[in-house]
Amino acid sequence: MTTKTQAFIQASIKTIPDYPKPGILFRDVTSLMEDAKAYQATIQLLVEQYQSKGFTKIVGTEARGFLFGAPLALELGLGFIPVRKPGKLPRETVSQSYELEYGTDVLEIHTDSIQPGDKVLVVDDLLATGGTIEATVKLIRQLGGEVTDAAFVINLPDIGGEEKLKALDLTVYSICEFAGH
Amino acid sequence: MTTKTQAFIQASIKTIPDYPKPGILFRDVTSLMEDAKAYQATIQLLVEQYQSKGFTKIVGTEARGFLFGAPLALELGLGFIPVRKPGKLPRETVSQSYELEYGTDVLEIHTDSIQPGDKVLVVDDLLATGGTIEATVKLIRQLGGEVTDAAFVINLPDIGGEEKLKALDLTVYSICEFAGH
Repeated sequence: MTTKTQAFIQASIKTIPDYPKPGILFRDVTSLMEDAKAYQATIQLLVEQYQSKGFTKIVGTEARGFLFGAPLALELGLGFIPVRKPGKLPRETVSQSYELEYGTDVLEIHTDSIQPGDKVLVVDDLLATGGTIEATVKLIRQLGGEVTDAAFVINLPDIGGEEKLKALDLTVYSICEFAGH
Repeated sequence: MTTKTQAFIQASIKTIPDYPKPGILFRDVTSLMEDAKAYQATIQLLVEQYQSKGFTKIVGTEARGFLFGAPLALELGLGFIPVRKPGKLPRETVSQSYELEYGTDVLEIHTDSIQPGDKVLVVDDLLATGGTIEATVKLIRQLGGEVTDAAFVINLPDIGGEEKLKALDLTVYSICEFAGH
């Protein structure tokens, strides 16, 4: 069921046709952040969803995951842990590769940022193939953290990322969904 | 004068020697964000500094500027506008190049994200040479926005960025300073 707040947030997201290539409808979360009321409502919905659930840390992936994960961590009073592209984190890291449409990419996390027993919520702006979140979950679990939940502003269910994340024993929450690719 | 809160925030920032190259002391703002109380105190200090000053938008630069600019925008009830590397923003953009130690890089902003008359606060994690913030200010002014202030968590005064930004008629605020390079 879509609430009025969810519909308000979804309406703030512009769709850019043929970006980054012909046939793709790009869902532009920057238009949501330009609208202070939509941005605040988004963080508030995530707070309601995840407060008092026993999470100890929030992990967000570079760069758009920072825009939702970090404010949520602040509201919940939890530390925020960034997952970044190689060469961006200054302390010792572990890394995980993942597949792109053409080739592979790598994500890193600070080795000492997750302790065994940490209960971690992963946050990103958009769920498409789920590849970056799968890599992120592997990084956290490699360090002994427990990951049960992943939160997104936007889910593109036709691309299949939700199934991929469910196969990793994750509960997936998204504020809104868009059909198509 | 350094307050107790500023000293508490500064103490949460780890220093990584010889990163990214020998002789550099890297100030690691990720350790601040891992400490929920230090991160909350940082955003609270920025709120106290900038509330009721008539700003209409907050601009933050990819990617660490998102981590402080976006939460501040949410707290102040202002829209958040990202400045990003080329090819990341889906709508029409304007771009500005800036000098790196070796070569140049380019930053972009959505053309329709700033309107003439907007009073814009620029936020980033760290002020070193000031090159990215100079480029960001040029982008905003090119679109008719007014920029009078730039806020940083960390200032490295020995590198000279503050002088560069003052020459652009900016008032610079930072929560803490570290000597050296």
